[in-house]
Amino acid sequence: MSIDLDRIRAAHERIRAYIKRTPVMTSSRLDEASGASLFFKCENFQKIGAFKARGATNAVFSLDDAIARRGVATHSSGNHGAAVARAARLRGIPAHVVMPSNSAKVKVRAVESYGAHILFCEPTEEAREAACADVVKKTGATLIHSFDNEDVMAGQGTAVMELLEDVPDLDLVICPVGGGGLLSGTAVAAKSMRPRIKVIAAEPENVDDAAQSFRAGRLIQTEKKLTIADGLRTNVGAPNFAIIQRYVDDIVIVSEEAIISAMRTIWETMKIIIEPSAAVPYAAIVERKIDVAGKRVGIILTGGNVDLNALPWT
Amino acid sequence: MSIDLDRIRAAHERIRAYIKRTPVMTSSRLDEASGASLFFKCENFQKIGAFKARGATNAVFSLDDAIARRGVATHSSGNHGAAVARAARLRGIPAHVVMPSNSAKVKVRAVESYGAHILFCEPTEEAREAACADVVKKTGATLIHSFDNEDVMAGQGTAVMELLEDVPDLDLVICPVGGGGLLSGTAVAAKSMRPRIKVIAAEPENVDDAAQSFRAGRLIQTEKKLTIADGLRTNVGAPNFAIIQRYVDDIVIVSEEAIISAMRTIWETMKIIIEPSAAVPYAAIVERKIDVAGKRVGIILTGGNVDLNALPWT
Repeated sequence: MSIDLDRIRAAHERIRAYIKRTPVMTSSRLDEASGASLFFKCENFQKIGAFKARGATNAVFSLDDAIARRGVATHSSGNHGAAVARAARLRGIPAHVVMPSNSAKVKVRAVESYGAHILFCEPTEEAREAACADVVKKTGATLIHSFDNEDVMAGQGTAVMELLEDVPDLDLVICPVGGGGLLSGTAVAAKSMRPRIKVIAAEPENVDDAAQSFRAGRLIQTEKKLTIADGLRTNVGAPNFAIIQRYVDDIVIVSEEAIISAMRTIWETMKIIIEPSAAVPYAAIVERKIDVAGKRVGIILTGGNVDLNALPWT
Repeated sequence: MSIDLDRIRAAHERIRAYIKRTPVMTSSRLDEASGASLFFKCENFQKIGAFKARGATNAVFSLDDAIARRGVATHSSGNHGAAVARAARLRGIPAHVVMPSNSAKVKVRAVESYGAHILFCEPTEEAREAACADVVKKTGATLIHSFDNEDVMAGQGTAVMELLEDVPDLDLVICPVGGGGLLSGTAVAAKSMRPRIKVIAAEPENVDDAAQSFRAGRLIQTEKKLTIADGLRTNVGAPNFAIIQRYVDDIVIVSEEAIISAMRTIWETMKIIIEPSAAVPYAAIVERKIDVAGKRVGIILTGGNVDLNALPWT
């Protein structure tokens, strides 16, 4: 069993009352600069400030009542934790969120604000997974993984579904890739709705495991390195990669400088706040990693949660 | 002769092909925080990044062909210069923009990008006016003043007209006041379309000439003092004040701290970039200068042109 368009449509029906239908923005200046028609799906305006609200809400509301009652758990240093906490509060069930002890305060406060139970752990993948497994064992909560979860993938796919409802005739969709939850949902939805559309992912070159895996035709794990696009540090998941291999046309990589510059250009030109991860697709256009000339291009702006005291250009 | 709703409607017909119909945004978090329903008219997304595109475009396109051919002139350190330059280019006529020598580089570049002829002068009101009078005399260009001009006022009034078309049942509209171009156009449009609506202006307490004049019932000039809301440093114009006295319900003042804090709150919560002047109405709500409890409140977010290297909280 995997995800398909029916499952993504069902996800949209399930979550639509709890999420925003985000607007699609355009910019004549960025169209001129790129030689393309760009359509930005503004998930920075989504609830909790990121597309993650979609997948987490779908996963939490897909649980049977008896199972849901025992709560949900996840580990996350970022937006997924807030998304699970919010969805659990909406459903009226407990949420346990494991966060690395070095998480940004603003992210911790966001999770707290939804009334979740936070467990801090050492900032390693192993410690996060162990702490999460422990709370699952003790409480009977259901683990909602941030990308290795079909309900999460199906939920993330609803963003491009809305985009294609609003702008049906896109030639190409670009989205960033980290764990691959968004990319797998996006690819299935876009290719199912418009078989001739291209789906291309963009990844920071500092964490290029998805691009390497895509070229090699097998999953390659890489060391987590630092990137300003902190939402994309994760290695791509195995079930996500299987979908990506089947549906995605290409994965390109971009430099850190291009990410920062693209982020600033979008802030200054479009007057919207996006986080570094959300700037990765436009960075790929600026660095000419993707040929967009004359095309109608959809771009998922994944989120807008930024620490205004630590902007990358200051 | 003054402005009325017919003139504002005519302005809208005249400029609609050249400006954006900007979206109205809402925020459940800011509604909760304020106890009101807030509707933000996003003129930060307007062409040239500010509502000023409306008035300048209306004034430039209102000129007879023979007069227009001789060009237009203005003096401005900010958004109005770019708005006149852009409108002139759209009409295919020369524009002369007098700018103080200490103008922000980003503003100078914006005016340049529309192909206007820039004249630099000493950074005083007298020098600006003298340089502008001189270029008008030499070229036969028509002066397009940034607020003391009925076509400009009528153009600025189109923002609230669109807002009331989109959200007809507002109880109250709040907009900032500097020279009074936006406020006079807004007040005439709003009161004509909805006679029972309240129109309240918000002004930085550092440059409270409009509030003082409103209380005194006569125009009071004050020294220009520094405010982070640099778009509002100007004293209110005489024809603008006549309209304000007739149509505006109140003018309240806000502290510099409240402006900076309101600006940051809107950036963080709504994920949009607004300039300090645009934060003044929300600052008035946060400082409880306006009773908004339970009301449906329209707020004009006037612009989004900010130097990202010089944010007020860093």
